[in-house]
Amino acid sequence: MIAHSNTSSPTRESETSSEMRHDWLADRWVIVAPQRTARPNDFVAVTPQVQSADGCPFCAGREVETPRAVASYRLDNACGDDWSVRVVPNKFPAVNAAKSIGLPELDTGAMPESAADDSIELFRRQDLSGGHEVFIESPRHILSLTELDRKEVTLVFRAYRDRLAHWLGQAGCGYAVLFKNVGLEAGASLAHSHSQLIATNIVPTEIQRTIDRMRIYERKEKTCVFTRMLENELEQQVRIVEETPDFVAFCPFASRTPSLVQIMPRKQSSQFERMDRFQIEQLAWLTHRMLRRIEKCFPDASYNFVIHTAPRSVGDASFFHWRMELFPRLTKVAGFEWGSDCYINPLTPEAAAQQLRQVGV
Amino acid sequence: MIAHSNTSSPTRESETSSEMRHDWLADRWVIVAPQRTARPNDFVAVTPQVQSADGCPFCAGREVETPRAVASYRLDNACGDDWSVRVVPNKFPAVNAAKSIGLPELDTGAMPESAADDSIELFRRQDLSGGHEVFIESPRHILSLTELDRKEVTLVFRAYRDRLAHWLGQAGCGYAVLFKNVGLEAGASLAHSHSQLIATNIVPTEIQRTIDRMRIYERKEKTCVFTRMLENELEQQVRIVEETPDFVAFCPFASRTPSLVQIMPRKQSSQFERMDRFQIEQLAWLTHRMLRRIEKCFPDASYNFVIHTAPRSVGDASFFHWRMELFPRLTKVAGFEWGSDCYINPLTPEAAAQQLRQVGV
Repeated sequence: MIAHSNTSSPTRESETSSEMRHDWLADRWVIVAPQRTARPNDFVAVTPQVQSADGCPFCAGREVETPRAVASYRLDNACGDDWSVRVVPNKFPAVNAAKSIGLPELDTGAMPESAADDSIELFRRQDLSGGHEVFIESPRHILSLTELDRKEVTLVFRAYRDRLAHWLGQAGCGYAVLFKNVGLEAGASLAHSHSQLIATNIVPTEIQRTIDRMRIYERKEKTCVFTRMLENELEQQVRIVEETPDFVAFCPFASRTPSLVQIMPRKQSSQFERMDRFQIEQLAWLTHRMLRRIEKCFPDASYNFVIHTAPRSVGDASFFHWRMELFPRLTKVAGFEWGSDCYINPLTPEAAAQQLRQVGV
Repeated sequence: MIAHSNTSSPTRESETSSEMRHDWLADRWVIVAPQRTARPNDFVAVTPQVQSADGCPFCAGREVETPRAVASYRLDNACGDDWSVRVVPNKFPAVNAAKSIGLPELDTGAMPESAADDSIELFRRQDLSGGHEVFIESPRHILSLTELDRKEVTLVFRAYRDRLAHWLGQAGCGYAVLFKNVGLEAGASLAHSHSQLIATNIVPTEIQRTIDRMRIYERKEKTCVFTRMLENELEQQVRIVEETPDFVAFCPFASRTPSLVQIMPRKQSSQFERMDRFQIEQLAWLTHRMLRRIEKCFPDASYNFVIHTAPRSVGDASFFHWRMELFPRLTKVAGFEWGSDCYINPLTPEAAAQQLRQVGV
């Protein structure tokens, strides 16, 4: 009964049975099981109560409650406020902060650890150093990036670009990732709209593994894997949500979670932080629209986004394509997924894309 | 600043800074960041309301609401009830059920798919077949396995053993996993105490990757990786929670989530389903005690457990060690983890083991 269909056929005849789809980059099979959505549910999910803005350390006027800003941005026409976007070190960092922020004392010698390590030591430890920063996206107590206007959201993305460029410009920095957690289910602890950057001396093993595969793909196929994927997606059209002159937003073929959206530049480009200001503005507004689509389709859902830019060792290599992933948190990771690392997605990416396309923004 | 300490020193001097720990088997670094627990929290997590037992399809008397049982167990002294444990096909299976349950029409030719696949195809699909079964652990509407007595919980574990043996005895079955989801956060949809088995024609890529590493370890070190790990754990003692004549429960050195417990047989043994009835009873009661510890430490927390037994192609190989993982769902998987596949655990496994040890059961 193992049937390798091996086709690029965009749709299936039946939406009522499971199939496996292969995420080539992660080398991971995902189970797409639309019939699972019909399950009964004993549990009434309760939307968590958000506490009031009183005492929010991210609001204007409470700047003393966060560490001193490492960067601050102000709209030209901002009246009254001292800042529009503020970047501060995380008070509870996941990584050990280098002593002097801005001039981190990262290791400048050894190459970052990679997946190729063959050591047989079972109890290895390593110090982790780098930076963990928080982007406070507004002096007002807003709960979503979609409450910002076009100029404001562009400023947030400029801050992303600048801070990624800052960290990835440090000789000892291996890896940097920009992410956003919105809502309790997505891992947020504060409600005031914010995003985060973590920079580390080490390249995470899984990231290194995908980089190795991107390199293999380019060697064999003479093109970047994401450039090829995008060509195919644009040809098939069934998973595209929205296009702009420079970017495409689509629901990837082997999405691990329902309604995951990937935004990618049309042209191969490995470094998010190399975008010019026109592209920044275009991307910021496309992200804003995609988040509005997600919010309209799934009101109250928590969500995350992640910006994958090239680790320092990859730089501007032609096999890497920077990209952004946005995903509402609609399902729980259960025992099967934890046990097998094989995810069950109850919504086909084709159906997800259609739903996101159809909602007006 | 990269400092390879490379020691097996069981404790750290400081609990206030982050370190990375390497999970050798998964070849994955985990960030242990105890200082993260001090974070403020804007969101008041609300325990989901559990609906009443009315209409629960798993309760005695409602057997017609589930598919016909593939196995049924009855305690010798059970009076009145027709069954004590009942195994039924999942009404909403994640995999396409083979036509005749009990004699599945699985592929008997091709070897299961493995991680070694080097295909460059970006849109691969595969049919997925196998079985998805539900173990209804009591005719009474209980919400936890810990409400069962020693004989009852032993019967549940006998059912696990029998069904794993059944599926892994089929020529076309590649992989089978037994798991339990308790509570909304752990992915449960029904509250009546139950567990599940998924058997597939395919070995998930990540499972195959760990098998390859177990094989490498044995070749280099002349012993099974888990046997060595257990020796070290018993020597260090700091992460041990409980020992029985045949089993050890401990919090692994590089746990991805807080308070994760692993239960393993002391002696190398690859197949859970090969246990004798004395071992089954011992393991069932140890699991019962571990779940009581978890429930006492974290009342109302959702949790999962997973039983990892050897895939069919591994059989009784000496490099594989079956094991069980139990983990309360205390943290959320946030943007950083999704982006980097590098988990942040805010509780050291040493502190977790101490807490679980100290609670009386």
